[in-house]
Amino acid sequence: MPTEPQAAGDTRAAADPRWLTSDEQTAWRSYIRLAKMLMRQLDRDLHPFGLTTNDYEILVELSESPHHRLRMTELADLTAQSRSRLSHQITRMEARGLVHRDACDGDKRGTFAVITPRGLAVIERVAPYHVESVRRHFIDQIPPEQLAVLTEAYDPVLETLRRVRDRD
Amino acid sequence: MPTEPQAAGDTRAAADPRWLTSDEQTAWRSYIRLAKMLMRQLDRDLHPFGLTTNDYEILVELSESPHHRLRMTELADLTAQSRSRLSHQITRMEARGLVHRDACDGDKRGTFAVITPRGLAVIERVAPYHVESVRRHFIDQIPPEQLAVLTEAYDPVLETLRRVRDRD
Repeated sequence: MPTEPQAAGDTRAAADPRWLTSDEQTAWRSYIRLAKMLMRQLDRDLHPFGLTTNDYEILVELSESPHHRLRMTELADLTAQSRSRLSHQITRMEARGLVHRDACDGDKRGTFAVITPRGLAVIERVAPYHVESVRRHFIDQIPPEQLAVLTEAYDPVLETLRRVRDRD
Repeated sequence: MPTEPQAAGDTRAAADPRWLTSDEQTAWRSYIRLAKMLMRQLDRDLHPFGLTTNDYEILVELSESPHHRLRMTELADLTAQSRSRLSHQITRMEARGLVHRDACDGDKRGTFAVITPRGLAVIERVAPYHVESVRRHFIDQIPPEQLAVLTEAYDPVLETLRRVRDRD
Protein backbone atom coordinates (compact mmCIF):
# COMPACT_ATOMS: atom_id res chain seq x y z
CA MET A 1 0.00 0.00 0.00
CA PRO A 2 1.28 3.48 -0.86
CA THR A 3 0.47 4.81 2.62
CA GLU A 4 3.45 7.15 2.89
CA PRO A 5 3.06 9.23 -0.31
CA GLN A 6 -0.72 8.99 0.03
CA ALA A 7 -0.59 10.48 3.53
CA ALA A 8 1.69 13.30 2.38
CA GLY A 9 -0.57 14.05 -0.59
CA ASP A 10 -3.58 13.92 1.71
CA THR A 11 -2.52 16.77 3.94
CA ARG A 12 -1.89 19.11 1.04
CA ALA A 13 -5.07 18.09 -0.78
CA ALA A 14 -7.32 18.43 2.26
CA ALA A 15 -5.94 21.87 3.11
CA ASP A 16 -6.25 23.38 -0.34
CA PRO A 17 -7.83 21.24 -3.06
CA ARG A 18 -6.83 22.25 -6.58
CA TRP A 19 -10.22 21.67 -8.25
CA LEU A 20 -10.27 21.11 -12.00
CA THR A 21 -11.06 24.06 -14.24
CA SER A 22 -14.02 23.76 -16.55
CA ASP A 23 -11.80 22.76 -19.52
CA GLU A 24 -9.91 20.23 -17.42
CA GLN A 25 -13.18 18.81 -16.15
CA THR A 26 -14.44 18.41 -19.72
CA ALA A 27 -11.20 16.75 -20.81
CA TRP A 28 -11.17 14.42 -17.83
CA ARG A 29 -14.79 13.29 -18.16
CA SER A 30 -14.34 12.76 -21.87
CA TYR A 31 -11.20 10.71 -21.21
CA ILE A 32 -12.67 8.51 -18.51
CA ARG A 33 -15.92 7.88 -20.36
CA LEU A 34 -14.09 6.91 -23.52
CA ALA A 35 -11.72 4.61 -21.62
CA LYS A 36 -14.62 2.71 -20.09
CA MET A 37 -16.88 2.58 -23.15
CA LEU A 38 -14.09 1.53 -25.49
CA MET A 39 -12.88 -1.25 -23.21
CA ARG A 40 -16.43 -2.50 -22.90
CA GLN A 41 -17.00 -2.44 -26.67
CA LEU A 42 -13.74 -4.27 -27.43
CA ASP A 43 -14.68 -6.92 -24.87
CA ARG A 44 -18.09 -7.29 -26.50
CA ASP A 45 -16.48 -7.74 -29.92
CA LEU A 46 -14.11 -10.41 -28.55
CA HIS A 47 -16.85 -12.20 -26.63
CA PRO A 48 -17.97 -14.47 -29.54
CA PHE A 49 -14.41 -15.82 -29.57
CA GLY A 50 -14.42 -16.54 -25.83
CA LEU A 51 -11.70 -13.95 -25.14
CA THR A 52 -11.43 -10.70 -23.18
CA THR A 53 -9.13 -7.81 -24.12
CA ASN A 54 -6.80 -8.95 -21.32
CA ASP A 55 -6.61 -12.51 -22.72
CA TYR A 56 -5.99 -11.10 -26.17
CA GLU A 57 -3.21 -8.78 -25.07
CA ILE A 58 -1.39 -11.57 -23.23
CA LEU A 59 -1.59 -13.89 -26.23
CA VAL A 60 -0.21 -11.15 -28.51
CA GLU A 61 2.72 -10.34 -26.23
CA LEU A 62 3.65 -14.01 -25.91
CA SER A 63 3.23 -14.73 -29.62
CA GLU A 64 5.61 -11.86 -30.47
CA SER A 65 8.30 -12.87 -27.94
CA PRO A 66 11.37 -15.00 -28.68
CA HIS A 67 10.48 -18.69 -28.17
CA HIS A 68 6.92 -17.56 -27.48
CA ARG A 69 7.63 -17.04 -23.79
CA LEU A 70 8.04 -14.27 -21.24
CA ARG A 71 8.84 -14.08 -17.54
CA MET A 72 5.67 -13.48 -15.55
CA THR A 73 7.18 -10.26 -14.15
CA GLU A 74 7.92 -8.94 -17.65
CA LEU A 75 4.48 -9.93 -18.91
CA ALA A 76 2.88 -8.07 -15.98
CA ASP A 77 4.85 -4.92 -16.90
CA LEU A 78 4.03 -5.18 -20.60
CA THR A 79 0.32 -5.64 -20.02
CA ALA A 80 0.12 -3.09 -17.18
CA GLN A 81 -1.34 -5.57 -14.73
CA SER A 82 -0.46 -6.31 -11.13
CA ARG A 83 1.47 -9.54 -10.65
CA SER A 84 -1.22 -11.20 -8.56
CA ARG A 85 -3.92 -10.31 -11.06
CA LEU A 86 -1.83 -11.65 -13.94
CA SER A 87 -1.20 -14.85 -12.03
CA HIS A 88 -4.96 -15.50 -11.64
CA GLN A 89 -5.49 -14.69 -15.29
CA ILE A 90 -2.75 -17.07 -16.43
CA THR A 91 -4.27 -19.83 -14.31
CA ARG A 92 -7.61 -19.37 -16.09
CA MET A 93 -5.93 -19.31 -19.51
CA GLU A 94 -3.89 -22.40 -18.60
CA ALA A 95 -7.10 -24.28 -17.82
CA ARG A 96 -8.29 -23.50 -21.37
CA GLY A 97 -5.04 -24.70 -22.92
CA LEU A 98 -4.02 -21.27 -24.31
CA VAL A 99 -0.81 -20.89 -22.29
CA HIS A 100 1.26 -22.87 -19.81
CA ARG A 101 3.67 -22.03 -17.02
CA ASP A 102 7.29 -23.10 -17.22
CA ALA A 103 9.67 -22.90 -14.26
CA CYS A 104 13.22 -22.74 -15.59
CA ASP A 105 15.67 -25.00 -13.73
CA GLY A 106 18.46 -23.08 -12.05
CA ASP A 107 16.85 -19.75 -12.83
CA LYS A 108 15.76 -18.18 -9.59
CA ARG A 109 14.13 -15.22 -11.28
CA GLY A 110 10.83 -16.98 -11.53
CA THR A 111 8.36 -18.61 -13.79
CA PHE A 112 7.76 -18.12 -17.51
CA ALA A 113 4.43 -17.98 -19.31
CA VAL A 114 4.49 -19.77 -22.68
CA ILE A 115 1.85 -19.64 -25.42
CA THR A 116 0.68 -23.09 -26.58
CA PRO A 117 0.12 -24.13 -30.23
CA ARG A 118 -3.58 -23.86 -29.46
CA GLY A 119 -3.05 -20.29 -28.15
CA LEU A 120 -1.15 -19.41 -31.33
CA ALA A 121 -3.94 -20.78 -33.49
CA VAL A 122 -6.52 -18.77 -31.55
CA ILE A 123 -4.62 -15.49 -31.88
CA GLU A 124 -4.09 -16.05 -35.59
CA ARG A 125 -7.77 -16.65 -36.12
CA VAL A 126 -9.00 -13.75 -33.97
CA ALA A 127 -6.46 -11.04 -34.92
CA PRO A 128 -8.18 -9.89 -38.14
CA TYR A 129 -11.47 -9.36 -36.29
CA HIS A 130 -9.87 -7.60 -33.35
CA VAL A 131 -7.89 -5.21 -35.54
CA GLU A 132 -11.12 -4.40 -37.36
CA SER A 133 -12.79 -3.67 -34.01
CA VAL A 134 -9.88 -1.41 -32.89
CA ARG A 135 -10.05 0.45 -36.22
CA ARG A 136 -13.81 0.85 -36.24
CA HIS A 137 -14.12 2.09 -32.66
CA PHE A 138 -10.92 4.11 -32.30
CA ILE A 139 -8.09 4.39 -34.83
CA ASP A 140 -10.12 5.13 -37.98
CA GLN A 141 -12.04 7.89 -36.23
CA ILE A 142 -9.05 9.96 -35.19
CA PRO A 143 -7.14 11.86 -37.91
CA PRO A 144 -3.42 10.88 -38.05
CA GLU A 145 -2.23 14.29 -36.84
CA GLN A 146 -4.45 14.09 -33.75
CA LEU A 147 -3.32 10.51 -33.18
CA ALA A 148 0.28 11.75 -33.18
CA VAL A 149 -0.51 14.45 -30.58
CA LEU A 150 -2.24 11.85 -28.46
CA THR A 151 0.75 9.50 -28.53
CA GLU A 152 3.07 12.39 -27.68
CA ALA A 153 0.84 13.62 -24.84
CA TYR A 154 0.57 10.14 -23.34
CA ASP A 155 4.27 9.43 -23.27
CA PRO A 156 5.23 11.37 -20.08
CA VAL A 157 2.02 10.24 -18.36
CA LEU A 158 2.93 6.60 -18.98
CA GLU A 159 6.47 7.19 -17.75
CA THR A 160 5.23 8.69 -14.48
CA LEU A 161 2.71 5.92 -13.95
CA ARG A 162 5.48 3.35 -14.41
CA ARG A 163 7.70 5.13 -11.90
CA VAL A 164 4.89 5.33 -9.32
CA ARG A 165 4.07 1.66 -9.82
CA ASP A 166 7.69 0.55 -9.46
CA ARG A 167 8.22 2.69 -6.38
CA ASP A 168 5.16 1.57 -4.40
CA MET B 1 -25.24 -9.87 -28.56
CA PRO B 2 -24.26 -7.90 -31.65
CA THR B 3 -24.25 -11.01 -33.85
CA GLU B 4 -25.56 -9.31 -36.97
CA PRO B 5 -23.01 -6.47 -37.37
CA GLN B 6 -20.30 -8.71 -35.97
CA ALA B 7 -20.96 -11.35 -38.62
CA ALA B 8 -20.90 -8.73 -41.38
CA GLY B 9 -17.65 -7.26 -40.08
CA ASP B 10 -16.22 -10.74 -39.76
CA THR B 11 -16.46 -11.65 -43.40
CA ARG B 12 -14.73 -8.48 -44.49
CA ALA B 13 -12.06 -8.72 -41.79
CA ALA B 14 -11.24 -12.35 -42.47
CA ALA B 15 -10.92 -11.77 -46.20
CA ASP B 16 -8.66 -8.74 -46.05
CA PRO B 17 -7.49 -7.60 -42.61
CA ARG B 18 -6.50 -3.93 -42.50
CA TRP B 19 -3.51 -4.29 -40.13
CA LEU B 20 -2.39 -1.22 -38.20
CA THR B 21 0.50 0.81 -39.59
CA SER B 22 3.52 1.24 -37.36
CA ASP B 23 2.34 4.70 -36.17
CA GLU B 24 -1.15 3.42 -35.52
CA GLN B 25 0.25 0.46 -33.61
CA THR B 26 2.34 2.80 -31.44
CA ALA B 27 -0.65 5.06 -30.79
CA TRP B 28 -2.90 2.13 -29.96
CA ARG B 29 -0.50 0.41 -27.57
CA SER B 30 0.22 3.71 -25.85
CA TYR B 31 -3.52 4.35 -25.50
CA ILE B 32 -4.43 0.93 -24.14
CA ARG B 33 -1.52 0.80 -21.71
CA LEU B 34 -2.29 4.23 -20.35
CA ALA B 35 -5.98 3.39 -19.97
CA LYS B 36 -5.19 0.31 -17.91
CA MET B 37 -2.38 1.76 -15.80
CA LEU B 38 -4.24 4.95 -15.01
CA MET B 39 -7.41 3.14 -13.97
CA ARG B 40 -5.34 0.90 -11.74
CA GLN B 41 -3.51 3.83 -10.14
CA LEU B 42 -6.72 5.77 -9.47
CA ASP B 43 -8.21 2.68 -7.86
CA ARG B 44 -5.12 2.31 -5.68
CA ASP B 45 -5.38 5.93 -4.57
CA LEU B 46 -9.06 5.49 -3.69
CA HIS B 47 -8.48 2.17 -1.92
CA PRO B 48 -7.68 3.71 1.53
CA PHE B 49 -11.16 5.27 1.42
CA GLY B 50 -12.85 1.97 0.61
CA LEU B 51 -13.96 3.17 -2.84
CA THR B 52 -13.28 2.21 -6.46
CA THR B 53 -13.31 4.65 -9.40
CA ASN B 54 -16.73 3.23 -10.30
CA ASP B 55 -18.13 3.91 -6.81
CA TYR B 56 -16.67 7.39 -6.92
CA GLU B 57 -18.11 8.25 -10.30
CA ILE B 58 -21.60 7.12 -9.29
CA LEU B 59 -21.51 9.17 -6.09
CA VAL B 60 -20.40 12.26 -8.05
CA GLU B 61 -23.15 11.93 -10.67
CA LEU B 62 -25.81 11.50 -7.99
CA SER B 63 -24.49 14.32 -5.80
CA GLU B 64 -24.64 16.72 -8.77
CA SER B 65 -28.17 15.74 -9.86
CA PRO B 66 -31.38 17.54 -8.86
CA HIS B 67 -32.69 16.04 -5.60
CA HIS B 68 -29.58 13.83 -5.56
CA ARG B 69 -31.24 11.17 -7.66
CA LEU B 70 -31.10 9.68 -11.15
CA ARG B 71 -32.98 6.98 -13.01
CA MET B 72 -30.91 3.80 -13.14
CA THR B 73 -30.99 3.93 -16.96
CA GLU B 74 -29.65 7.50 -17.01
CA LEU B 75 -26.99 6.66 -14.45
CA ALA B 76 -25.86 3.70 -16.58
CA ASP B 77 -25.53 6.01 -19.61
CA LEU B 78 -23.65 8.70 -17.68
CA THR B 79 -21.18 6.25 -16.19
CA ALA B 80 -20.78 4.20 -19.38
CA GLN B 81 -21.75 0.95 -17.69
CA SER B 82 -24.13 -1.77 -18.76
CA ARG B 83 -27.42 -1.77 -16.88
CA SER B 84 -26.87 -5.17 -15.30
CA ARG B 85 -23.39 -4.25 -14.13
CA LEU B 86 -24.67 -1.00 -12.64
CA SER B 87 -27.45 -2.86 -10.87
CA HIS B 88 -24.95 -5.17 -9.11
CA GLN B 89 -22.81 -2.19 -8.22
CA ILE B 90 -25.74 -0.26 -6.73
CA THR B 91 -26.67 -3.31 -4.65
CA ARG B 92 -23.16 -3.37 -3.16
CA MET B 93 -23.22 0.38 -2.50
CA GLU B 94 -26.70 0.08 -0.96
CA ALA B 95 -25.37 -2.50 1.51
CA ARG B 96 -22.77 0.06 2.62
CA GLY B 97 -25.36 2.80 3.08
CA LEU B 98 -23.95 5.06 0.33
CA VAL B 99 -27.04 5.01 -1.94
CA HIS B 100 -30.55 3.61 -1.94
CA ARG B 101 -33.04 2.60 -4.59
CA ASP B 102 -36.36 4.39 -4.91
CA ALA B 103 -39.21 3.12 -7.07
CA CYS B 104 -41.43 6.06 -7.95
CA ASP B 105 -45.19 5.37 -7.60
CA GLY B 106 -47.04 5.69 -10.88
CA ASP B 107 -43.81 6.08 -12.86
CA LYS B 108 -43.36 3.07 -15.06
CA ARG B 109 -39.98 4.18 -16.33
CA GLY B 110 -38.17 2.40 -13.60
CA THR B 111 -36.21 2.78 -10.43
CA PHE B 112 -34.14 5.72 -9.20
CA ALA B 113 -30.80 5.60 -7.42
CA VAL B 114 -30.52 8.19 -4.63
CA ILE B 115 -27.37 9.20 -2.76
CA THR B 116 -27.75 9.02 1.06
CA PRO B 117 -26.49 11.66 3.54
CA ARG B 118 -23.71 9.22 4.33
CA GLY B 119 -22.83 8.96 0.63
CA LEU B 120 -22.74 12.77 0.40
CA ALA B 121 -20.44 12.98 3.41
CA VAL B 122 -18.11 10.38 1.85
CA ILE B 123 -17.87 12.18 -1.50
CA GLU B 124 -17.23 15.50 0.23
CA ARG B 125 -14.42 14.02 2.26
CA VAL B 126 -12.79 12.06 -0.59
CA ALA B 127 -13.12 14.60 -3.45
CA PRO B 128 -10.01 16.68 -2.56
CA TYR B 129 -7.82 13.56 -2.56
CA HIS B 130 -9.29 12.17 -5.75
CA VAL B 131 -8.86 15.43 -7.67
CA GLU B 132 -5.25 15.50 -6.48
CA SER B 133 -4.79 11.95 -7.79
CA VAL B 134 -6.35 12.84 -11.18
CA ARG B 135 -4.12 15.91 -11.43
CA ARG B 136 -0.94 14.12 -10.41
CA HIS B 137 -1.37 11.13 -12.72
CA PHE B 138 -3.01 12.76 -15.74
CA ILE B 139 -4.20 16.38 -16.01
CA ASP B 140 -1.10 18.19 -14.71
CA GLN B 141 1.16 16.21 -17.03
CA ILE B 142 -0.55 17.18 -20.28
CA PRO B 143 -0.14 20.76 -21.53
CA PRO B 144 -3.53 22.55 -21.97
CA GLU B 145 -3.20 22.72 -25.78
CA GLN B 146 -2.66 18.95 -25.99
CA LEU B 147 -5.54 18.40 -23.58
CA ALA B 148 -7.76 20.41 -25.93
CA VAL B 149 -6.72 18.27 -28.93
CA LEU B 150 -7.42 15.15 -26.92
CA THR B 151 -10.93 16.29 -25.96
CA GLU B 152 -11.63 17.23 -29.58
CA ALA B 153 -10.27 13.92 -30.90
CA TYR B 154 -12.33 11.90 -28.43
CA ASP B 155 -15.64 13.57 -29.19
CA PRO B 156 -16.57 11.67 -32.40
CA VAL B 157 -15.22 8.41 -30.95
CA LEU B 158 -17.52 8.75 -27.95
CA GLU B 159 -20.46 9.59 -30.20
CA THR B 160 -19.92 6.45 -32.27
CA LEU B 161 -19.49 4.26 -29.21
CA ARG B 162 -22.79 5.59 -27.84
CA ARG B 163 -24.56 4.88 -31.14
CA VAL B 164 -23.17 1.32 -31.29
CA ARG B 165 -24.18 0.69 -27.68
CA ASP B 166 -27.73 2.01 -28.18
CA ARG B 167 -28.17 0.05 -31.40
CA ASP B 168 -27.05 -3.33 -30.08
